[in-house]
Amino acid sequence: MIMESDATRAMDSENRTYWESELETLPRAELEKLQLRRLNESLHLAARSPHYAKCAQIGRMLREGIKSIEQIRELPFTTKDDLRQDFPWGFLAADKREVIRLHSSSGTTGNPTVVFHNQHDLASWANLMARSLYAAGVRQTDVFQNMSGYGLFTGGLGFQYGIERLGCLSIPAGAGNSLRQIKLMRDFGTTVAHAIPSYLGRLHEVFLAEGLDPRRDTQLHTLVIGAEPHTEEQRRRIEAMFGVKAYNSFGLSEMNGPGVAFECTEQNGLHIWEDAYIVEIIDPQTLEPLPDGERGELVMTTLDRQAMPVIRYRTRDLTRILPGACPCGRTHRRIDRITGRSDDMFIIKGCNVFPMQVEGILMKLPEVGDNYRIILDHLDDQDEMIVEVELKREWFSGDVERLTRLQRRIAHLLRDEVLLRPLVRLVEPGSLPRTESKAVRVIDRRKTSK
Amino acid sequence: MIMESDATRAMDSENRTYWESELETLPRAELEKLQLRRLNESLHLAARSPHYAKCAQIGRMLREGIKSIEQIRELPFTTKDDLRQDFPWGFLAADKREVIRLHSSSGTTGNPTVVFHNQHDLASWANLMARSLYAAGVRQTDVFQNMSGYGLFTGGLGFQYGIERLGCLSIPAGAGNSLRQIKLMRDFGTTVAHAIPSYLGRLHEVFLAEGLDPRRDTQLHTLVIGAEPHTEEQRRRIEAMFGVKAYNSFGLSEMNGPGVAFECTEQNGLHIWEDAYIVEIIDPQTLEPLPDGERGELVMTTLDRQAMPVIRYRTRDLTRILPGACPCGRTHRRIDRITGRSDDMFIIKGCNVFPMQVEGILMKLPEVGDNYRIILDHLDDQDEMIVEVELKREWFSGDVERLTRLQRRIAHLLRDEVLLRPLVRLVEPGSLPRTESKAVRVIDRRKTSK
Repeated sequence: MIMESDATRAMDSENRTYWESELETLPRAELEKLQLRRLNESLHLAARSPHYAKCAQIGRMLREGIKSIEQIRELPFTTKDDLRQDFPWGFLAADKREVIRLHSSSGTTGNPTVVFHNQHDLASWANLMARSLYAAGVRQTDVFQNMSGYGLFTGGLGFQYGIERLGCLSIPAGAGNSLRQIKLMRDFGTTVAHAIPSYLGRLHEVFLAEGLDPRRDTQLHTLVIGAEPHTEEQRRRIEAMFGVKAYNSFGLSEMNGPGVAFECTEQNGLHIWEDAYIVEIIDPQTLEPLPDGERGELVMTTLDRQAMPVIRYRTRDLTRILPGACPCGRTHRRIDRITGRSDDMFIIKGCNVFPMQVEGILMKLPEVGDNYRIILDHLDDQDEMIVEVELKREWFSGDVERLTRLQRRIAHLLRDEVLLRPLVRLVEPGSLPRTESKAVRVIDRRKTSK
Repeated sequence: MIMESDATRAMDSENRTYWESELETLPRAELEKLQLRRLNESLHLAARSPHYAKCAQIGRMLREGIKSIEQIRELPFTTKDDLRQDFPWGFLAADKREVIRLHSSSGTTGNPTVVFHNQHDLASWANLMARSLYAAGVRQTDVFQNMSGYGLFTGGLGFQYGIERLGCLSIPAGAGNSLRQIKLMRDFGTTVAHAIPSYLGRLHEVFLAEGLDPRRDTQLHTLVIGAEPHTEEQRRRIEAMFGVKAYNSFGLSEMNGPGVAFECTEQNGLHIWEDAYIVEIIDPQTLEPLPDGERGELVMTTLDRQAMPVIRYRTRDLTRILPGACPCGRTHRRIDRITGRSDDMFIIKGCNVFPMQVEGILMKLPEVGDNYRIILDHLDDQDEMIVEVELKREWFSGDVERLTRLQRRIAHLLRDEVLLRPLVRLVEPGSLPRTESKAVRVIDRRKTSK
């Protein structure tokens, strides 16, 4: 029987601590040397694209040579608007004949963006994805059900190629259809699954409605959750519901998709793969760099993408570099879970509020179920923040006094967190709208009512 | 810049006549020698699976040795029911750790089937897919939009891996959302697209509704159509609507999915890749082999699949081997377009009718639009076949007499073909139900009304 080299690699994977021992544990000084060399290559490639060819600073830097990673700060940022303005071919740095895939946000309205990949890029992405999953304890013996949408959404093909690269048995289940998901899990003994966190609450409800308990009636030991900001409390709930470890996955299509940063089994932040990306945290107002530990906007530069290098991309995602080394031995730094996007903060009655602050409070309360939403409205001539909260079945009982006490307590805790007293509505479990794609947590009705 | 071997291969693809010159033009005697060697390997592998391990004939044949391909007739058939009965692991011939993907029909009801693939199998499948597309004139310079559903349906990932293997720029568009499909085609200058034939009629309507003409407003030159039986007339209509060449693609998930048989640019039948499959045509009643040229049920044996070999699979698809050599120079024999499935024939008033017979008549008429359906009903105490036919806009006018004449003519033509006079209903364009997945052409109401 013919065994390809990939398969051989995967066959011995059980005995290794890391997917790529040398690269993952490279001493910082060497990692930075590698970054410098790759940055130089990336800038050379980038300068072939119409967009970056116009960039005087890149031209100068390539002529004069780059001596240190910090010099990257002399280069301009790239924004989503830049990607939109130069759609579709402006960022393409390779011969079009070399490109073998694109992922586009191309909807029917609005301004689309696109990312191009050549053979090298897809192989590199699949390898980063395999490295990430391996770090979270996924092994070749696992049966991996990917509950992401496929097609242009990167969560489908991104995971698919990584799972196959790692050598797991992949089930390309796609999104939605909970009864089929459950049947697949049980038919094939799925041990690892990937989904967005808000869908897992819905899936759990369907398990219960079928008289099944995923802790008893599946062989799941690991869930990978991502593509949607969520809190530590929500993670712990998912772990309890399914009786598994849940690992945080981070990515964005501009930086490939999934596989950019991933939790290792220590579950204390997400290793961001610094051989493939240069990471900066900036103050989103002043645009100045922030030191490790301080929260700000994540800015990233691709180091291993040929068809479409992107320099200093403003991701809008808010996080911080976690100081200190990780006990796992990986030298790639960790980012904190994403607490929101610089553009999903809303301002109400003069207070700056991030939806994750509200979720953090709610998910700590044992009475609260897995679904909530925030409505911003203009009532009685003033703006109000209304927080609708689904309670757990056993708490939504006839005792009005008990409910009133809980309602007051939630309002009080939220006021302490966001410095604004919201209106709290406690609702029956299952009464808020469900979605099989990303959950809509904030509805702003002020715009239409004004 | 690092160039992987695949990319290098694809880079010079413009200069070649075939994707794999030697294999595709192998003299028949050598091709049969290769088949014999691979059949022997496949039987050895198959015998490791619980299902085939029980098969006495395979055991005896392996002990005694196989001298000729014809000996395959001594082996029992494998049916869909066998796959269902031994679900999920009964046909697995490899170590489970070696399997990296499954495709399952696993719905929420009914009896599911599953096919397993290891690394070798996926590489072999991608190569057959690339070979097929190359034969239809697709080249690395093409922009290929795959309008198949992804996930467990093999039309998504099957085409995706083949397109990338060939080196085209792939757009993993997925199924449905016609406005987005059109936007993607125009944004990225799509030159080749893959879809099921019934969807292309729908897509064309949306083009027209948007004031666009695909012949003028896209760069399409080729469409790949498959996964649904259709007539030569429907193909010619699709070619006219889009101003392209349309090529017939054949596959079934039990034999991987797409890439089993494909038309070359001669458009005179589908080359079935005989280095990867042994092909038989049998009489579905007597189960006896039929000579080349005679129509019967296609039976296939995998020759290059390791994780799950399948021996003498009864596909239920009706076709025939086209006699004679193809001017393209490929030595792999051609099958005729699928004219239906042995299980989709219906019997009404004692006549055996295949839906494709009806379609063949309708699509020849210039007055008829692209949508029709057949309803079998019990009316006035007898069974009736009702054929609902959408007319073209310009024909659905107020002139009742003209419509009555057309109605009579269609009824007459159909009676000559199926030996039964149907009730014909002419309906307005756009009035029959549309689907973004496979079209439902026959509705049998007799079962419920009896």
